[in-house]
Amino acid sequence: MSNAAFTTIAEFHRLLTEMPGPDDGALTGANERNSCLTKPPGALGQLEDLAIWYAGWRADPQPKLSAPQVIVFAGNHGVASLGVSVFPTEVTAQMVLNFQAGGAAINQLARTFGAQLDVHALDLDQPTNDFTKGPAMSEPEFLNALNTGWNAVNPDADLLVVGEMGIANTTSAAAIALALFGGDAGDWTGRGTGVDDAGLILKTQVVADGLGANPDAKGDGLTALRCLGGRELVAMAGAIAAARSLHIPVLLDGFICSAAAACLAQSAPGALDHCMAGHVSAEAAHAAILKQLGKTPLLSLGLRLGEGSGAALAIGVLQGAIACHSGMATFQEAGVDEA
Amino acid sequence: MSNAAFTTIAEFHRLLTEMPGPDDGALTGANERNSCLTKPPGALGQLEDLAIWYAGWRADPQPKLSAPQVIVFAGNHGVASLGVSVFPTEVTAQMVLNFQAGGAAINQLARTFGAQLDVHALDLDQPTNDFTKGPAMSEPEFLNALNTGWNAVNPDADLLVVGEMGIANTTSAAAIALALFGGDAGDWTGRGTGVDDAGLILKTQVVADGLGANPDAKGDGLTALRCLGGRELVAMAGAIAAARSLHIPVLLDGFICSAAAACLAQSAPGALDHCMAGHVSAEAAHAAILKQLGKTPLLSLGLRLGEGSGAALAIGVLQGAIACHSGMATFQEAGVDEA
Repeated sequence: MSNAAFTTIAEFHRLLTEMPGPDDGALTGANERNSCLTKPPGALGQLEDLAIWYAGWRADPQPKLSAPQVIVFAGNHGVASLGVSVFPTEVTAQMVLNFQAGGAAINQLARTFGAQLDVHALDLDQPTNDFTKGPAMSEPEFLNALNTGWNAVNPDADLLVVGEMGIANTTSAAAIALALFGGDAGDWTGRGTGVDDAGLILKTQVVADGLGANPDAKGDGLTALRCLGGRELVAMAGAIAAARSLHIPVLLDGFICSAAAACLAQSAPGALDHCMAGHVSAEAAHAAILKQLGKTPLLSLGLRLGEGSGAALAIGVLQGAIACHSGMATFQEAGVDEA
Repeated sequence: MSNAAFTTIAEFHRLLTEMPGPDDGALTGANERNSCLTKPPGALGQLEDLAIWYAGWRADPQPKLSAPQVIVFAGNHGVASLGVSVFPTEVTAQMVLNFQAGGAAINQLARTFGAQLDVHALDLDQPTNDFTKGPAMSEPEFLNALNTGWNAVNPDADLLVVGEMGIANTTSAAAIALALFGGDAGDWTGRGTGVDDAGLILKTQVVADGLGANPDAKGDGLTALRCLGGRELVAMAGAIAAARSLHIPVLLDGFICSAAAACLAQSAPGALDHCMAGHVSAEAAHAAILKQLGKTPLLSLGLRLGEGSGAALAIGVLQGAIACHSGMATFQEAGVDEA
């Protein structure tokens, strides 16, 4: 299923609606195994649900998690020129070099949890169009980024985390959230990497103007992603969808990752059933997106960095859950009396 | 400082009040380093505080975490004979065999996060006295357990997690919490491994009777630990204190571990400054103890297993925090523009 090249958005949308579900036999087997392990029923809390969920998507009642992949996509945004971020746009490319040199937070986290880390810089010298003037991307531009994301997933991975780098991309994520979920621009706009009060007012106006200039984005996930997203958001969505086709569960990262993912869920209900929320960000609108998606975050530690960092940290939780599920002895095996 | 043998409780109490603090130079250095790393200020949230806290206790502004130790202490309780647990007392010894054979949850979690795991069974054939009739332990019994805990800490470890196994030990923890923090027995008594409504009523009465039979335990941490605790709780307290003397930070586990630790804090304010709360348990009284201790848990995943499992899971979070702090490039090193 990997190495696809979607030539129309409609083709991608059709595939999204035909995605495989979890394996019922593995779910049943994992539930039965869980009930026999040497612990009081339910005593591992969310770890039990997490392991069973993972078993279903891996089609294995006693799965291993040994090959997590983290992919960071980077893109530049036309709206950055409007002054919506405290950092200059050059930082996107500088941080890509930092990822490649191993110096960023995501490098340390990927190494800590034994994950493969791949970095894709998407036409950084060609920022997307300023979405307050019209669509951020043409259909060919969208499909290029989508195919890059789709093809970036390692078919041999057994867990996927997607992260991003892109100066001004919380502005893009806020505009997408406004398009998908309604409300006011201020409901979805936060300080990102740290704009001041005046910056926040400007940024909120840019978000509102983005929807004003792209009325078709309202309530249409893939149109919102093309018109208000950035290349890195499109690539994240492509990778999340590819993971589904490859039976690879996904941990969602923060606000930007979740906004990109929400476009899939809006276009095809259930498209994120193979995803868990790795964490909830300190960017306040993230909690609101997760609520819309019906996802409970595994971690809540005040991170707001992006790069996939919060989800990468949650790899450890998932590794612990699966180690317990697949490695523990049953009451019978251990000769322990049941209650 | 290890291999001590306390011969009186007063001697231990005196040592508790003379414990070393964190290294100020390392705290300053770690704060400075944190402010230069390639991320927006504060974007790693609690991970930043965690790494700086760890640096202070390790007296190293750029520390490593490479040798975590998990110790599980097991003990049997006189009050188990009153029917306060759904499991028979034989399960304590059976679970010790399961720990030794590698089949329990804590074995999988310790392995996942690269921790040394040690198990100490404390006179399982001699349950403590029924504390509804008088003190659970004599002073010599208390000191034996305390010394076992103290000497169990590996001086070369750089992080400690202590866990426990002991049928009826949530009853013991509830009685300690009642003695230290007041309120009603019902405020501190929960379902443990799963007692029904009638069992909960009985258990609450046992907790109240425990304090009635041991009035000296009220408001006196070490007396509460001796009169209402069990050997595994005393050993946990001893190990937590030993870690302090060895400059080893500690992640606290759930309700029982926190009740044992609270006895130290009550006897010597600040005695838990080298401890973070690894998680908050589904046993409702645990959150109340953490509030009393002024500790914010790193994880909240509904675990209520004991064995050190919640804190062991949090080792991964701490590993991620320290990997970022000590491994990331600074803005200057990476050639990234600051805001």
